[in-house]
Order: sequence, then structure tokens, then C-alpha cells
Amino acid sequence: MPNGPDARARANRAAVDALLAADPVLTGVESAASAMGLPSTTILTSGPTMPFASYTGGQRAAVIGGALYEGLAPDADAAVAAFESGAIQVRGCQEFGCVGSLAGVTTASMPVAVVTDARTGERAYCTLYEGDSADRLNYGTYTDATRRNLEDLRLRVAPAIDGLVKAQTEALRLKPIMTRALTMGDELHSRNAAATLLFLRRLLVGAKELGPDIDAALESLCDDYFFLRLSMAASKVMANAMRGFEGSSVVTAMAFSCAQFGIQTSGTGDTWFTGPLPTFEDYRIEDGFGPDDMEFMGGESIITEVIGLGGLSQAAGLPLLRSSGRDVSRMIARTTAMYDITVAESPEFLIPVLNYRGAPLGLDVEKIVSRPDVTPYLDIGIAGRSGRQIGGGVARAPVEPFQKAWDSLVAS
Amino acid sequence: MPNGPDARARANRAAVDALLAADPVLTGVESAASAMGLPSTTILTSGPTMPFASYTGGQRAAVIGGALYEGLAPDADAAVAAFESGAIQVRGCQEFGCVGSLAGVTTASMPVAVVTDARTGERAYCTLYEGDSADRLNYGTYTDATRRNLEDLRLRVAPAIDGLVKAQTEALRLKPIMTRALTMGDELHSRNAAATLLFLRRLLVGAKELGPDIDAALESLCDDYFFLRLSMAASKVMANAMRGFEGSSVVTAMAFSCAQFGIQTSGTGDTWFTGPLPTFEDYRIEDGFGPDDMEFMGGESIITEVIGLGGLSQAAGLPLLRSSGRDVSRMIARTTAMYDITVAESPEFLIPVLNYRGAPLGLDVEKIVSRPDVTPYLDIGIAGRSGRQIGGGVARAPVEPFQKAWDSLVAS
Repeated sequence: MPNGPDARARANRAAVDALLAADPVLTGVESAASAMGLPSTTILTSGPTMPFASYTGGQRAAVIGGALYEGLAPDADAAVAAFESGAIQVRGCQEFGCVGSLAGVTTASMPVAVVTDARTGERAYCTLYEGDSADRLNYGTYTDATRRNLEDLRLRVAPAIDGLVKAQTEALRLKPIMTRALTMGDELHSRNAAATLLFLRRLLVGAKELGPDIDAALESLCDDYFFLRLSMAASKVMANAMRGFEGSSVVTAMAFSCAQFGIQTSGTGDTWFTGPLPTFEDYRIEDGFGPDDMEFMGGESIITEVIGLGGLSQAAGLPLLRSSGRDVSRMIARTTAMYDITVAESPEFLIPVLNYRGAPLGLDVEKIVSRPDVTPYLDIGIAGRSGRQIGGGVARAPVEPFQKAWDSLVAS
Repeated sequence: MPNGPDARARANRAAVDALLAADPVLTGVESAASAMGLPSTTILTSGPTMPFASYTGGQRAAVIGGALYEGLAPDADAAVAAFESGAIQVRGCQEFGCVGSLAGVTTASMPVAVVTDARTGERAYCTLYEGDSADRLNYGTYTDATRRNLEDLRLRVAPAIDGLVKAQTEALRLKPIMTRALTMGDELHSRNAAATLLFLRRLLVGAKELGPDIDAALESLCDDYFFLRLSMAASKVMANAMRGFEGSSVVTAMAFSCAQFGIQTSGTGDTWFTGPLPTFEDYRIEDGFGPDDMEFMGGESIITEVIGLGGLSQAAGLPLLRSSGRDVSRMIARTTAMYDITVAESPEFLIPVLNYRGAPLGLDVEKIVSRPDVTPYLDIGIAGRSGRQIGGGVARAPVEPFQKAWDSLVAS
């Protein structure tokens, strides 16, 4: 290993400083084709890319649904044949700078929020929240209702929000919204209620004029989850700022599919280090469902944890008590434990119940492997085998990917 | 005393149940003359009514400013002469069902929020927030800037908000907003940031159509304090529901002027029991000001404490840490202490950091006099001698008014 502990500490600090310097701005809501150059025959989904055959259950259904929505096949069987022949390709979202929520299916015609780092021009993307419908593509359900909802997003909601974004007189900076929401009960992953409200007001107040489309925008912004997709894209922009610091052991990405959990680090580039799926520590599912109904269908919203939010800032999201906590002291203990595996405390993301202590920032694979009983907490939604969201909870990342990344860093 | 402890406990419980049954709805923003029947020569101000000569300092200046704004005198000297002759009268706000913020000056032409109990039709009123201008009538400053600002409220902001309120398709219920805001860092007295955002969204989404006045409404709703006046009027409606239960020792009103602090109880009707001004326990004032710059100019926003919010729910308002807390544990301890002097826990107002325990509800003069070291905490703004707000903090009510009320209850 060419760099000793001091050099690594300096590289980690530089990576975190780069993250702090990032200034994510919402610059538009456009089709994935135009924003990301996504080819029409490529279907993106959550987690490190796998062969089509490795996607199972709800995530497989979502990927197939994406192909049908895009009009690439007349029915599911034909879509499967096209994936198998290579006429349609499946890829991990993050290869295109995108992050996927749950199954994370992203196709060329779908609108994505475009978040740009005002400092560097680097961009990241995320689809819009599908609403609280039971039929959601990203929970593995593709029906007429799913399609109508996606069309409503594409034809009404996205243009309305894009119009308001383009009508802004000043850059629509997301970090001020995020820092404030963190003091109002959001941890910006499973809880985005305050951020959505702050964004709504900022969006309306900052627009030169409010066109007739405002109703469609308001409708979507009534959903407390709306901001999650912006939080994810902003987190991706900030996480990307940490990439490429030689020898740095900080985590730059985390994601999972139906089959595996993966991470990337600053010092190891685009390589995914993978391991088994996370395990739940506390969760709550709706009445009528049991643990056997829970299914992992993928998820990249844990990019928020990469920048110190979500499970790392669980003590900021006290309204998640019922799903994730059982007791406030448990939620506080979780965030407190995260300081042991991170390299810094955020000077911007502050947690009220900890007397405004900064959020734990910069997950460090070296620290994680040195105490494998402490891996990152992840605040995640729970999909049901039958499709739709059935709950939410807090899970722990597996230690294996961090160990593999550390082995690779040490060997290099 | 005709009623023993059991009867009093039942009366207190009945009073609290009546409060919980109240359903405050914002029904309009109209002039105090039309809404409250306020005569043009009557100037309302905070606290139990006193003779004009007893109002001093900023509160006196505010009362005189109110007369000038109303066009009742050409200058301050003429206004004073008119007050002294009785041509203009000064009265306590609550004699007209109104609650006053800080000096609380309310005149006939000023717009007031009208909050109506959907169950009984009973109403309460409060003026609109003057914004963060340094020149505010309620901080004892009456200048051209003050007057222009009040005119803007009357001519632009109030009609815009009234229009949106009148365009609602369903009753604009305030309690759902308040209960939710309490889980998002507001205690609904010194902190109303989440409630203002929730109100803004509810106002826009519930309106049949958004007219051209929306900009004026948005402007005012950008102020995090906007909702305070609605919180106050809603609290007054709920507090009034507790009035008139024979033998009940629960507090139905608290208010102070520049000279005295007063309370009313359910069992003693409209009689004010008075005592000295509150004393600060923790506070924060802006750089450049010292304790000598602080001045009591009156305040009736402590009606929120009467229904269990504000200082009683300080543990819900963690973002007030810097002004009121110094340490989260102190804020939690304050709310915890309030359970010792209240008769119930709210099933609606829940405090996240206490694992969603209900807010302490129903201040009981019997309990307060039995442990005079524990009087109600009050989250209040701090006025400067030079006019304008210079800070905020947490004060304690004096025990004397509670002792006098208890003596009266026992003697009756």
C-alpha cells in the first residue's frame, strides 16, 4: 500500500471537504433520454448491474414493466425474450449517474429530476415519486393503473414542476432546504415531510410567475415523500464529489438489488464490492402482513446515508419512531454509534436532539472493518411480495462489502 | 366551598374534555370592526384592562400609535389628551374575544384572523403578523414604515388570504395542522415554522381556484411566524371551551401588560387575578443589546400555554434550543415538570422526543399553589426599549395570580 494512515486520513478529509463544497441545485425535470442520454432500449434498475436472469421477484417484474411502459415489447413474455437476446439491456442506475428508489426502474421517456453541482456542473438524476398508489412500478407492479400514473407524471406533473423550476429567478439550491428540514423531523430518507413543504414554498416564491400548471405541481407536492427523489439526486451529487481521492477509504456509493448489496469507495473508483442483503433491526409493516411478505426489490435511496442522512441521522427523524425506533433513546443511540465509523461531523447537517451536533459524515471502510458489529444503519421502505409498499424500518448493511473494499485498498 | 376535591376533579376533567371537543376553523380575515364589532374609538391592547395612565414605555407608545393609525388624533399629544378625556378608550383585548401578540394593539380597521369553533360557533380573533420589519407597532414603534406596513397588511395581504380562505372547498381546520407541526419542531408559540408551511400548502390546495392575489398571500406566508396568530386565535377558541365549569380550578386565560400578569380560571369567570411580571429563566438577545434593553410591553400569546403548547411543550420545540434551552435535557425537563401542575395529557398534541407522550394539558391553580416553585413556563419574545424584537426566551409565570385565584375558588 503506497499510502500510510496519515496519507489516508488526509485523503479522507479531502474527500469530505469536497462533499461539503458541493452545491446541489435543481435545474430541471426532463426525460431520462434528454437529460442522461439514456438509450430507449436500456432499462435501468437499482444495484450493481447483474445479468437479466439474476433479477428475480418484484425487481424482475419491475424491469419487465419498464420495458412494457417504454413500448419495447407487446407483452411480458416478449420482453423477457428481448432481454435474453440482448435487444433490451438492463443496467445499474448509477452507471448513468442516476439513483433509483426501491426497484429504481428508469427508462428513456420517464421524467427525471436533474440536480447540478453549481460549483462543478456535475449532474445526478432521479425519477419522480409515483405517489401513494398501490400500483407502483418500483414496487414490482405494472398494471393499467401503474401506466396511467406514470403517464400523468410524464405529461402533467413533470412539465408543471419543470416550468416552475425554469421560472426561478435564483438558483434553486437544495442544501439549504435539506439542512433546515433536518431540524424539523426529517432525516431526508424515510422522512421528507418538512423538506417537501420547504421545497414547495421555495418553488412557488422563487418563480417569476405561477402558470396555470400550478395545480398539477401542487398535487404532487402534497405527498410527503415528494422530496425524497430530490434528496437522493442531491445526495448523489454530493457523494460524487468524494470520488477519486487516491487512497481514501470513504464510501462514495451504496446500493442493493434483489440479490446483493454493493458499495464503492473513493480510492477504488467504479468497482462495486458486494455482499449479502441488509438485515432489519426494527421495522413496522401494515396490519395483515407478516415477515414472509417482505421482499427486497432493490434500493439506492441509501445514497442519503452516504452523505450522513437517513439511518446515520436517525436521531433527527423522531417522527419515524413507530417504524424505526420503538424508543427515542434507541434512535439517538444509533446515530451516536455512527460517529464511530465516520471520519467527520457535518458543519451543515445538524441534529437538534443532540444539541445540534453535526451529523456523522463520511463512512470509512477502515473503521467499519475494525468493528464489524457496527455497520451503517439504513432507513428503508419495505416492499411486499404482492407489490406495493407495506412498511418501513431500519436495517444494517452487511460487513462483507466493506471488508472486500478494505482488502482492495490495502492491496493496491 | 360547595364542592369537594372529587367534584373539582370532575369539573376539571369536564373542562379539559370541552377543550378537546373544540374544533377551531379559520373562517376569514376581516376588519376588527366587522368581525368583532370593535368601535372605532376603542384601542385594544394586551393584558387585563388598566387605566390609560398605567400603560408605560413601549406599550403606551403602541396604544398611542394605534390611535394615530386609526386617525383618531393628529399627533401623539392630541391622542394622549383624547385618551385622558375618554374620547378614546383603551381596553384589554380579551374583553372582545381577541388575543394580542406582544403589545397586542388592535384597532377597528385592522384585519383580524377569525377562528370559529365548528362545534359551537364561538369565535376568537387575532391580528396578522407584522413581518420582521424593525418598525412594528406591537414592539412600541409607530413610524411611516410601521403605517405603510399595516396598510399593506390591510389592503393586500388580508384580502388575499381572506380570498383563499373563502375559496376553500372544505373547512380549514387548524387543529390537524397544529398537531402535525408539534411533531416537526414547533411548539406553536415561539416557533411556528412547520405550521406556517403546513398552513400554506393546505390553503393553496384547498382553494377552488388560486386568484392573482396569491403573490401577496405567499409573501406573508414566507414568514415563519405567520402561523403564530392563527395558533393564538385557535388556542383562544379552545381555551374558551373550558370556561364556566363550576368549581373547576383550571386556567382559562393568561395575559400580561407592561405592569401586571393576570390569569382567569374556569370556576371564577371573567375575573382577572393579577400579580407581578414573569421572570426569564433562559433567553437570548441579539449582539449589541444587554439585559437593560429588555422591556415588557405586554403579551397574550401565552394563551398557547393555556392549551398545553408553548412553554408547556417546550420539548417539542427543540429548534428553540439557542434561545430557550442551552441544552435539550433542560427543555425536556421543563415539559416534564409541567405534568405536575396540569390535570391531563393531550391525546392529540404529542411530543416526539418524549416518545409521543401527550402534552401537559389543563394548568391547575390548586396544583400550582401546592408547589409554588413550579409555575407555568412561558416561551416569549423579547422587546427592546428602543422598539423592535431583540430576542426570545423562556420565562416563568409569577405564583401570586394563581394563589389569588385559588383563594377565590376556595372562598366561593
